[in-house]
Amino acid sequence: MKNLLDAYTKTRRHTQTLCKPLQTEDYTPQSAAFVSPPKWHLAHTSWFFEEMILKKHCDNYDVFDASYAFLFNSYYNSLGERIKREHRGLITRPSITDIYEYRQHIDAKMKTVLSNSPSKTIRELTILGINHEQQHQELLLTDLKFTFSHNPTYPRYSNKNYISKQDTTKEWLSFNADVYKIGHTDDSFSYDNELGAHRVFLEDFKISKDMVTNADFIAFINDNGYKSPKFWMDDGWHWLQNNNISSPLYWKFVSGEWYHYTLSGLQPVDVDAVLTHISFYEASAYAFWAGYRLPTEFEWEIASNQLSWGSVWEWTNSAYLPYPNFKVAEGAVGEYNGKFMINLMVLRGASLATSANHSRYTYRNFFSPETQWQFSGLRLAK
Amino acid sequence: MKNLLDAYTKTRRHTQTLCKPLQTEDYTPQSAAFVSPPKWHLAHTSWFFEEMILKKHCDNYDVFDASYAFLFNSYYNSLGERIKREHRGLITRPSITDIYEYRQHIDAKMKTVLSNSPSKTIRELTILGINHEQQHQELLLTDLKFTFSHNPTYPRYSNKNYISKQDTTKEWLSFNADVYKIGHTDDSFSYDNELGAHRVFLEDFKISKDMVTNADFIAFINDNGYKSPKFWMDDGWHWLQNNNISSPLYWKFVSGEWYHYTLSGLQPVDVDAVLTHISFYEASAYAFWAGYRLPTEFEWEIASNQLSWGSVWEWTNSAYLPYPNFKVAEGAVGEYNGKFMINLMVLRGASLATSANHSRYTYRNFFSPETQWQFSGLRLAK
Amino acid sequence: MKNLLDAYTKTRRHTQTLCKPLQTEDYTPQSAAFVSPPKWHLAHTSWFFEEMILKKHCDNYDVFDASYAFLFNSYYNSLGERIKREHRGLITRPSITDIYEYRQHIDAKMKTVLSNSPSKTIRELTILGINHEQQHQELLLTDLKFTFSHNPTYPRYSNKNYISKQDTTKEWLSFNADVYKIGHTDDSFSYDNELGAHRVFLEDFKISKDMVTNADFIAFINDNGYKSPKFWMDDGWHWLQNNNISSPLYWKFVSGEWYHYTLSGLQPVDVDAVLTHISFYEASAYAFWAGYRLPTEFEWEIASNQLSWGSVWEWTNSAYLPYPNFKVAEGAVGEYNGKFMINLMVLRGASLATSANHSRYTYRNFFSPETQWQFSGLRLAK
Amino acid sequence: MKNLLDAYTKTRRHTQTLCKPLQTEDYTPQSAAFVSPPKWHLAHTSWFFEEMILKKHCDNYDVFDASYAFLFNSYYNSLGERIKREHRGLITRPSITDIYEYRQHIDAKMKTVLSNSPSKTIRELTILGINHEQQHQELLLTDLKFTFSHNPTYPRYSNKNYISKQDTTKEWLSFNADVYKIGHTDDSFSYDNELGAHRVFLEDFKISKDMVTNADFIAFINDNGYKSPKFWMDDGWHWLQNNNISSPLYWKFVSGEWYHYTLSGLQPVDVDAVLTHISFYEASAYAFWAGYRLPTEFEWEIASNQLSWGSVWEWTNSAYLPYPNFKVAEGAVGEYNGKFMINLMVLRGASLATSANHSRYTYRNFFSPETQWQFSGLRLAK
Repeated sequence: MKNLLDAYTKTRRHTQTLCKPLQTEDYTPQSAAFVSPPKWHLAHTSWFFEEMILKKHCDNYDVFDASYAFLFNSYYNSLGERIKREHRGLITRPSITDIYEYRQHIDAKMKTVLSNSPSKTIRELTILGINHEQQHQELLLTDLKFTFSHNPTYPRYSNKNYISKQDTTKEWLSFNADVYKIGHTDDSFSYDNELGAHRVFLEDFKISKDMVTNADFIAFINDNGYKSPKFWMDDGWHWLQNNNISSPLYWKFVSGEWYHYTLSGLQPVDVDAVLTHISFYEASAYAFWAGYRLPTEFEWEIASNQLSWGSVWEWTNSAYLPYPNFKVAEGAVGEYNGKFMINLMVLRGASLATSANHSRYTYRNFFSPETQWQFSGLRLAK
Repeated sequence: MKNLLDAYTKTRRHTQTLCKPLQTEDYTPQSAAFVSPPKWHLAHTSWFFEEMILKKHCDNYDVFDASYAFLFNSYYNSLGERIKREHRGLITRPSITDIYEYRQHIDAKMKTVLSNSPSKTIRELTILGINHEQQHQELLLTDLKFTFSHNPTYPRYSNKNYISKQDTTKEWLSFNADVYKIGHTDDSFSYDNELGAHRVFLEDFKISKDMVTNADFIAFINDNGYKSPKFWMDDGWHWLQNNNISSPLYWKFVSGEWYHYTLSGLQPVDVDAVLTHISFYEASAYAFWAGYRLPTEFEWEIASNQLSWGSVWEWTNSAYLPYPNFKVAEGAVGEYNGKFMINLMVLRGASLATSANHSRYTYRNFFSPETQWQFSGLRLAK
Repeated sequence: MKNLLDAYTKTRRHTQTLCKPLQTEDYTPQSAAFVSPPKWHLAHTSWFFEEMILKKHCDNYDVFDASYAFLFNSYYNSLGERIKREHRGLITRPSITDIYEYRQHIDAKMKTVLSNSPSKTIRELTILGINHEQQHQELLLTDLKFTFSHNPTYPRYSNKNYISKQDTTKEWLSFNADVYKIGHTDDSFSYDNELGAHRVFLEDFKISKDMVTNADFIAFINDNGYKSPKFWMDDGWHWLQNNNISSPLYWKFVSGEWYHYTLSGLQPVDVDAVLTHISFYEASAYAFWAGYRLPTEFEWEIASNQLSWGSVWEWTNSAYLPYPNFKVAEGAVGEYNGKFMINLMVLRGASLATSANHSRYTYRNFFSPETQWQFSGLRLAK
Repeated sequence: MKNLLDAYTKTRRHTQTLCKPLQTEDYTPQSAAFVSPPKWHLAHTSWFFEEMILKKHCDNYDVFDASYAFLFNSYYNSLGERIKREHRGLITRPSITDIYEYRQHIDAKMKTVLSNSPSKTIRELTILGINHEQQHQELLLTDLKFTFSHNPTYPRYSNKNYISKQDTTKEWLSFNADVYKIGHTDDSFSYDNELGAHRVFLEDFKISKDMVTNADFIAFINDNGYKSPKFWMDDGWHWLQNNNISSPLYWKFVSGEWYHYTLSGLQPVDVDAVLTHISFYEASAYAFWAGYRLPTEFEWEIASNQLSWGSVWEWTNSAYLPYPNFKVAEGAVGEYNGKFMINLMVLRGASLATSANHSRYTYRNFFSPETQWQFSGLRLAK
C-alpha cells in the first residue's frame, strides 16, 4: 500500500502548503454561510478520516478531542448533532496550533493503518478521504478569496492570480445523433454520482472549442445584458434585482475600466482571459443573448476529449440528478452526494484551483444556479 | 371556424360556471403570493385575449379599461409594468361586476373576430388563449382551496371533494432498454415545451400500475417518516424543519384520526383514496423509504398508455428543462414557458381539477419541489 | 340610561355610515399586517360588546356564531386563541351580509340590556365599547386609505379629502418652569392610560401656535432633508434607507410637482395645508433641521387650551409609558392599553378622521416611530 | 497635564490587560451584528483618538494606515464611509500585531500631545476618548462572553466569574413626593446625555434595597413565568415566542438543574447570587408577576446614595430620551449619544464588568428592550 500512503501523505501535505501564506487571523472567520474558514477545512478533512476510518475500523483508537465530532461534522445526520453551518466562524478555540496537532495525530494513526495491510474497505475509504480533501483544497481557495474580497485592503494571497488565457479558435465541433455511453467505468476512483454507466441518446449537436472570454462578456454587459429581462430566466432576473448584480463577482467598475479582485490582489480585467465567477443565471443569459445555448452535461462529456478544458468549471444546462441505477451507499458515506440531487445544476471540467489529479471528464460538480464564488465560466453549444 | 368559436365559448363559460358557488367576498383576497384571487383569474384570462389578439391584430379595438394592462398582466416583461404579484389581492376595484362586464366585452369582440375568417396567427393565439384559460380554471380551484383552508369555518365550495379511489393491482409494468420517442408530434395543440420531439435512451425500468394511497403514506408517517433525515433530500429536510411540516397539506390529526380539508369541507381521510397535496420532497422521501424511486418524465410518457392516470398530478424525478431544439417564440408568448426552466420539477398526468380536454400524455406540468397546494401525488418506479 | 343608549345607537350607526361608500369587494382584503379590513372592524367592534358584556354579564345570551370568538378577537390573550393578525384579510366567509346581521343581533341585545337598568359595570363597559368603536371608526378610514393607495386607479372614497388649512401666526406660546398637573381627573370617560393624575415639573418652554405645513416640509425635502443623515435618529436613517422613503406617505413626484393620494383621489399637494402622514422619524428630523425640537406630551397638554388642534395627530417626543400609579385593570380589559407601553411614541390631539366627541386634551395616542399611515403631523417647541 | 496623561496611559494599558488571556484566534471573529471582535475594540478605541484629536488638532500628524478610517469607524456618518457593522469580523488583515503597533503609534503621538500643554479642546476630547475606551472595555468582556458561549467547549476567559452576592434585606426605601434635581452638575466628566441638570417632580415612591436574585427569578420560571402572556408586554411576548426564550441568557437546564455559562466556564447557577443577563422584557414581566414595578431612572437617581449598586446594570422603566435643554454637540462627537434616543430603555448603575472610575449615579446606559448580553438585572419599586 505504499502508493496509497504516498497519495495520502502528499494530499495532506498539500492542504497545509496551501495555508502557508495565511496569517493566524485568516484561519478563523467565516464570511458567509456557504463558505468555511481555513481552520474548519483543515479540521473537517481530518475529522473525515477519524469518523469514517479510525473510529469505525481501528481497534483502540484514541479520539483526539471528543468535542471535534460536534465541531467539524459538516452535514452527516447519521453522525450526530453538529455546529450550525453559519457558526463555523465562531470556533476561536481550538486554536490553529491545536488543529495542526490534530492533523498530526490523524496522520500518525493513518500511517500505521495504511502500513499494515489495510482491508479493502479501509483502502476505499482512504481513497474517498483523499478525494474529499482535494475537494476542500479547492474550496479553501475559493472561500478564502470570498472572505478576502470583503476587506477593502484587498489582501494578496499569492503571486498566482488563477487566471488563464486561450487561443480563440472560433471553431465548433459537430456530433451526430446517436446513442452514447456516459459515466465512469474503469477501475480508477470516482464518486458514486458518476457511476451507473449508462446510455444516453443525443440528437445532433455542435459545441464550441472556445471558452467565453472577458471581452465576450463585456460586450454582453455593454449591450444592456444586465438590464434586459428578456435574456434571463425568471428566477435569474429576480436574483439579479434582489442582489443588485451588474457584473461577475469580484468585478468593480472604476474610472471607466473594469477591475476584479484576484488572489493576487485587485487587478484590471484582462479582456483576453477566460471569463470566470459567473452564476448559471449569467451563463444562461449570455448564451441566450449570443443566440446559442449551454451544452448538456452529456454533450460535454462526449465532446470532452476534443476540448481544451480545466481553466474554469463550465456550467451545463443539466440539472444534478441521479444516473439510472444510482445507489445510495450504506452508512454515513451515503450522505456524500445523493441527498443534494435537487435544485442544483451540473458543472463539468475543472478549474485552475482544482487540485492535481482530481479532475476527470466524468466528474460532476454541482452548485445552485446563483453560485458565483467558484471559478465558473461557460462554453456555448447549439 | 365554428369549432374554434365553440371551443372558445365553452371554455369562457366554464370559467364562470366554476365561480357559481362563490360569494362576492370570495373573489378578491389573496392568501399567499403564489395563489391568485378568483377575480384576478377571471380578468387575467380575458386580458390574455385582449393583449395577445385584440390589441395587436384587430383594427379599431377599443380597450375596455386602460388600467387593466397594469392590473392583470401576470409576468410578461415585454408587455410593460404590472402590479406586484403579492398585491393581486388588493384590487378591490374594479368590482366583480366590472370584471364580468370586461369578460363580456372581450367575448363580444372575440366572437366577431372568430366569425370573420381569422388569420392563422389569430387562430393559433386563440387556441393558446383557450388552453391558458383552462390552466387558470385548475388554478382557480387550487387557489380557492388554499384560501378557504385558512378559514376556521372550513367553507364548502362544492359537493364534489375531488378525491379518487383506485383498485390497487400491486403490478409493475416492465420496459426494456431502448431508444424511445418523446414529445408532442401530431397536429393537435401543445405548449412549446412539449415540442421538439426527440429520442431518449431509457435503460430497463419498471413502473407501478398503482398510485400511492393515503394508507401507504400513513404507514410512512407512522414509521417516523417526517422525523428521519435519512429519507429526505437535504433541501427537503430543511424545508420540513423550517415550515414545521409533518403531513400532506390540509391534513390535521384530531383525536387520534387524520382529517383533511377538501373542497366539500373537513372530512376524515379516506385511507383507500389516492394520496394528494404532497410536495416533491415528500414524494421523494416516500419513495426512498419504500425502497424505490420516482419515475423520470420520459419513463412516465413511454408507459402512459398502459397506466391509469388523471386523478392527481404525478411528481417525476425530472427537472424542468428544455427539450433539444426547444425554441423560444417571438414576442410576449415567448415568455409563456421557457423562462421558468430552472429549479422546477416536472409533473406528468393530470388531476381531477384539470379541465376537460386539457390533459394529454405529453403534457409537462412544473412546480418547485416544495409545492403542495396542487393536487399532486406519486407513483413508484424501479 | 336613555343617554347611554342614544350614544350607543349613534356610534353604531355612524360606523355603518362610514361604510356607505364601500362596494362589497372593499370590505374583505387586508393590505398590510398593521391594517384591518372594513369587515373586520365592523365585526370586531361588535365582538367587543359580545365578549365584554353580553357573554359575561347577561343571562341566557345566545352567541351569534361560535367561530366569531376566534375570528374577531384582536389581541386579548385572556379571551383565547385567535386568527393571526396578518390573516384578517382571508375571512371571505362570513359574508358582509352576515356581519351586518351580527351587528343587528348585538344591537338588539344591547338595546335590551341598556333599557333595563344596567349595572354600573355594564354601563362602564358600554362606554368603553363606544369609545373602542370610535377608535375603530378612525382606523377604518386610515386603513381603507392605505389599501386604496395600492390601487393604481386611485379610488375615491368621499368628496371630503380630510385636509385642513390654518392661518399661520408664526407665534410661540411661552410657559414658565413650574409643577403642573397632568392627566384625566373629571368624571367623564377616559382610558386607563390617562388616569393616575399626577404632577410633572416642566422647565421653561415655548411651543408654536402653528402646525408645520406642506410648504415647510417641502423646504426640508429641497434642502436634502431625506439625504442627510445628520438630521435623523440613527434608527430613522436605517428605516429611511431600508424602505426607500423620500417623502411623506402617499406623496408622489410627477412631472416636477408633488401629488398625494387622498380619500378623494390623487390631488396636487396644497402647500398651505397642514402636513400629514409623516412618521416620528420624519417629524424629529424636520425639527432638528429647523433648529427646534418636538414638544413633550406634558408640554403639549399644558399648552393645549391655547392651541388650535385637531386637524392631525401631533407627534411628541414622549415615549408611551405608564403614569405614576397606573393600574392594570382586572380581566380582559386590562389588556387594552398597558401591555403596549414599550417602543411606542405618544401623539397628542386628534385628526380630521377622529370621530366626534372622541377627542380630549388628555388623550394619549401611541404608535411606533415609523408609523405613517395615520393622519399625523407635528408642531415645534423650543 | 500629568494626571490626564496618567489617566490616558492607565486606560490604554488596561484595555490590553483585558486581552491577556486571549489567543490570537479569539481576536477576529464576530458572533452577531451587535457584538464586535476584540481586535475591532482595540483598533476602534485608537481610531477615536486619531480621528477626534490627532487628525483634527495636531499639525503634521502621519496617519498610521489610511484604510483604518474605513475599517474602524463605528457609526459616525460625518466621518465618512465605513465597513458594514456585520462585517467587522471579516477583517482578518490587519493582523493583531498590526493593531498593537497601531495602538503604540497612537499612544506615542498622544503622549507628545498631552505633554505639551494641550488646549482645552484636546483635553476635553482626551477625557471623552478615555471614557469611550472604558465603555469598550466593558463591551470587550460582554462581547467575548457572547462569542465564547457559542463554543460547545465553553472556553474559560478568567478565574473571575463576574458574579456577586448580596445580603438580602427585604427593606424598602421611601421617598416623598417632591421636586428633585436630576442630572450631572459638577466639574467632573459626564456624557452629554447626563447634562442639562433639571428638576423632576416625583410622586411618593418606594424602592427596594435588594436586587432580584437567581432564587427569586427561578420562582418566576417555576410559576410558568415564561409561559403566561399576562405578565408580559405584548412586544416581549412576541420576542419570547419568536426566539424561543425560556430563561436568562446563558442559562441551560441540565438534568434537573440550572447551569449558566460564565467567563470562568459553565457553572451551576448560584441561587443566592444577583440575577443578570435578562432583557427589559424579562425584568418587566418579573416585576408584574411579583406585583411591583420597575423604578424610573429618576427614582433610581434620587435613591442611589442609599442603595448598594454596581454589580449589574439595572433596568428602569424610563425610555432613553433627551433631558430638557439637551444640546447636540458640533461635529462628529455630536453623534455620540443623541441620535440613539429612540426605542431604547435606560439602565442605571454599573456592573462588575464596568471599568474602575467609570461609574457614577447620573450615568445613563441605554439598550433596546430585548438586550440580554449585558450584565443586566433589576430592582423593584412600588
